[in-house]
Amino acid sequence: MLKKYLLAPGPTPVPPEVLLAMSRPILHHRAPEFAEVLGQVKEDLKWLFQTRNDVLTLVSTGTGGMEGSVTNFLSPGDKALFVNSGKFGERWGKICAAYGVKTEEIKVEWGYSVDPQLVKSALQKDPSIKAVYIQASETSTGVAHPAREIAAIVKAHENTILVVDAITALGVFDLKVDEWGLDVVVTGSQKALMLPPGLAFVSVSEKAWKMADKAKNNKFYFNFKKERESLSKNQTAWTAASSLIVGLSEVLKLQKAEGLENIFARHHRLAEATRQGMIAAGLKLFAKGTPSDALTAVEAPAGFDGQAIYKNLRVTYGITAAGGQDQLKGKVFRIAHMGYADTFDTITAIAAVEMVLKGMGAPVNLGSGVAKAQEILLKKLN
Amino acid sequence: MLKKYLLAPGPTPVPPEVLLAMSRPILHHRAPEFAEVLGQVKEDLKWLFQTRNDVLTLVSTGTGGMEGSVTNFLSPGDKALFVNSGKFGERWGKICAAYGVKTEEIKVEWGYSVDPQLVKSALQKDPSIKAVYIQASETSTGVAHPAREIAAIVKAHENTILVVDAITALGVFDLKVDEWGLDVVVTGSQKALMLPPGLAFVSVSEKAWKMADKAKNNKFYFNFKKERESLSKNQTAWTAASSLIVGLSEVLKLQKAEGLENIFARHHRLAEATRQGMIAAGLKLFAKGTPSDALTAVEAPAGFDGQAIYKNLRVTYGITAAGGQDQLKGKVFRIAHMGYADTFDTITAIAAVEMVLKGMGAPVNLGSGVAKAQEILLKKLN
Repeated sequence: MLKKYLLAPGPTPVPPEVLLAMSRPILHHRAPEFAEVLGQVKEDLKWLFQTRNDVLTLVSTGTGGMEGSVTNFLSPGDKALFVNSGKFGERWGKICAAYGVKTEEIKVEWGYSVDPQLVKSALQKDPSIKAVYIQASETSTGVAHPAREIAAIVKAHENTILVVDAITALGVFDLKVDEWGLDVVVTGSQKALMLPPGLAFVSVSEKAWKMADKAKNNKFYFNFKKERESLSKNQTAWTAASSLIVGLSEVLKLQKAEGLENIFARHHRLAEATRQGMIAAGLKLFAKGTPSDALTAVEAPAGFDGQAIYKNLRVTYGITAAGGQDQLKGKVFRIAHMGYADTFDTITAIAAVEMVLKGMGAPVNLGSGVAKAQEILLKKLN
Repeated sequence: MLKKYLLAPGPTPVPPEVLLAMSRPILHHRAPEFAEVLGQVKEDLKWLFQTRNDVLTLVSTGTGGMEGSVTNFLSPGDKALFVNSGKFGERWGKICAAYGVKTEEIKVEWGYSVDPQLVKSALQKDPSIKAVYIQASETSTGVAHPAREIAAIVKAHENTILVVDAITALGVFDLKVDEWGLDVVVTGSQKALMLPPGLAFVSVSEKAWKMADKAKNNKFYFNFKKERESLSKNQTAWTAASSLIVGLSEVLKLQKAEGLENIFARHHRLAEATRQGMIAAGLKLFAKGTPSDALTAVEAPAGFDGQAIYKNLRVTYGITAAGGQDQLKGKVFRIAHMGYADTFDTITAIAAVEMVLKGMGAPVNLGSGVAKAQEILLKKLN
């Protein structure tokens, strides 16, 4: 028997009570029983997003939500600014290119957070920029960007919106969507929302809706105005993924019972314990900028292959973490502490990394990282 | 206690063994365990589609698959022909319009099947037509179209492909994708495939792939070539809806055990029993053309509201069927016999309709429709 652990930065484990809820007989998406569920989910999502804006629910992965956040607000030939500090920042550029949106790129070395002043000067230099696209948490590097500071800059520009990929941020750390002025915020079901993949969520501010009125880009399936209209009747524009939404209603109950502050504190505690534990085990963190509390990218020790560490975790210990993507392949491995994760998931992750490294012949004192993590987890819990 | 029955033309009930499979711990979409599942599903889908073509799996509803079947094969300004005989035929026109594709429309009165000769003459008249869009089964009217005959016509045109919305057809009745020459065939998870909503499937012929090389329409999320490339490595381009795909692997096992011929015969038997049962109960079928074996649209008796019948089925008897859509609202109700449906689902449907009508004061001999259905179900089973 090899017991399985899912510690990847998405998908994340689904709580048993949510799996059970999704096993109930299917609800029809036009039946009143379903409208009732969706109506409650709609309100609870606003709570989770800290917003009074509409939060749309789409049947797609997060990438579909990202695409819609380009096509619904911009026209071909419009100008957008995007921050590219990893695989997902790069994706904003690719989506814009696919839809004829001209882009200005702020290229940030992988591992660093963007300097908000770069956004400020780019907007000052070119006031025709209609939208700024960032990641709140760049999943490929485990680095967070200063969404709040960037929002304060974008807010001053009447005709520019801020679009935030919060796929590994929302429900992980604090994002005050309304208070900070995050116009469009995208997330997915399989991260902090503790659901299987299949849903994307997008909150849209009034400022962004006004821009949507003028956007001429082609769209049909990802039509936010159509979704907004349906949502006002507690429906979705197309067939709803009803079993996932029933699961979501259970997730939101769990999250409301825990409370936003506690959720954020838990993620921070686990992240901090992972980071300090890895350092105590003799490893280096990849993040040079602000580390994301969603996941930790750890450098493979010199002379050791990150993919081999990832593979050993899986094959020898039944732990699915993640390797490095693109330019980081072989150089890092990534451990998530997001969603349905708590103290002993973190202990497990650190203990397993120590054991894998030992098994590979790397210099490591068994238990050194675990002890440091325990210390932090104890302190933070009290 | 009001026991619930789902007899709507999608979503359809999910077999308990499939619900259980989807309750297993989440698989990571880049892990070898998942690639193994997807590799088997890929082969089994070819069996279900009766094709050697690639069958792509998308995280979306069927409408997303329809959109991709426009954007991946056509460029703005290209010409398409579409058959509009109901709400879903109409949708082909709307998608083409959203992406700047010029359309020629064959408008068919709701309730009728299209005359293939109309397709033939439209193609002869305008050889610049690059794609013909049809429904194999129009869900809003319960009518089937002659896909085979239309395919034979389109096949003769070297530069024209046939795109079939088979969302309530594939896995219900025989569609010989390769043998007949159906270039692009779209279906969804929540119909004959007995899964929750959330996946679309699209098979693509070599003729269509050649057209895809030249298609200039904007696309990013629904990028069929990118999906094809990922599928060759037993992956999906974006995050896979892994729990649905694990469910799908169970569904395909059930379907392979039953066999295609038996599946089609079962649907035909249930459909025929429903149709004859409704007639014996004194009702009129809406279909004037070839009735679809996926669902039966029944006219509300003169002086009675179809929506009230639909509502009574639900409220009084716990049965979720469907009402009429758009111009048929109040005029018909629709009963499905698709997917995880067998003899006594059909008996239940007919008995309930009789009881609802009796309760509403309509003239009906209780048991008359049931008796006729029993007769047919007995005869066909022996």
